[in-house]
Amino acid sequence: MTKKSETPYDSLERIFHEPNRMAIMSALCTAEKGLRFSDIKKTCNLTDGNLNRHLKVLSEAKAITIKKKFVDDKPCTTVSLSEIGLQRFNEYLNALEQVLQRAKEAVSEDARGQAPFIGETVGA
Amino acid sequence: MTKKSETPYDSLERIFHEPNRMAIMSALCTAEKGLRFSDIKKTCNLTDGNLNRHLKVLSEAKAITIKKKFVDDKPCTTVSLSEIGLQRFNEYLNALEQVLQRAKEAVSEDARGQAPFIGETVGA
Repeated sequence: MTKKSETPYDSLERIFHEPNRMAIMSALCTAEKGLRFSDIKKTCNLTDGNLNRHLKVLSEAKAITIKKKFVDDKPCTTVSLSEIGLQRFNEYLNALEQVLQRAKEAVSEDARGQAPFIGETVGA
Repeated sequence: MTKKSETPYDSLERIFHEPNRMAIMSALCTAEKGLRFSDIKKTCNLTDGNLNRHLKVLSEAKAITIKKKFVDDKPCTTVSLSEIGLQRFNEYLNALEQVLQRAKEAVSEDARGQAPFIGETVGA
């Protein structure tokens, strides 16, 4: 799943870079024994269909585990972060931090007037 | 384009949240008078087709301006950040920073053993 990093942006793992999946992963990080489907849905403000779709992507990447069992005679789906999921999410956040830092530096460089005209710095 | 912010993740503008577009925007931030198509392509490690596709998205959102002219009798496409593009990219980076901070705090909370069982904290 991890592709060759040719630019720092390449190291942003696509499975975590979708905002809703980032929200799901962050929520799962705070619950060692997992979260119920209904709680993730509420926390992340998602529909059943959307949450199911994102959980499928994360599960296929082995970032989470999904368990279905009965609690008080009612079916209950519990989602937990896997060890590898936590590790890779952490790596993703570190990569994101670097990319963010670089972008912020670029924005602060944009002083609208300081940069030389492109023809002076870049060959044809 | 900006949708209602119901979670902090919703404030991550989708047009900037694609890693290649983030790379393009960051590159443009460093060049007040714009960058040539060929230079962006090289800097961001993109094909002609991919770069064209991303520029179209950014241009339709009025985040960039694209100018075609002749330089030394050769056609030259120059891409520049718009004022609104810079402002919105800056806002995106601030939103991203908050989301990143929240996720990092969540990861650090995952001490694998400290969190109470979900049944103790969340209603049925």
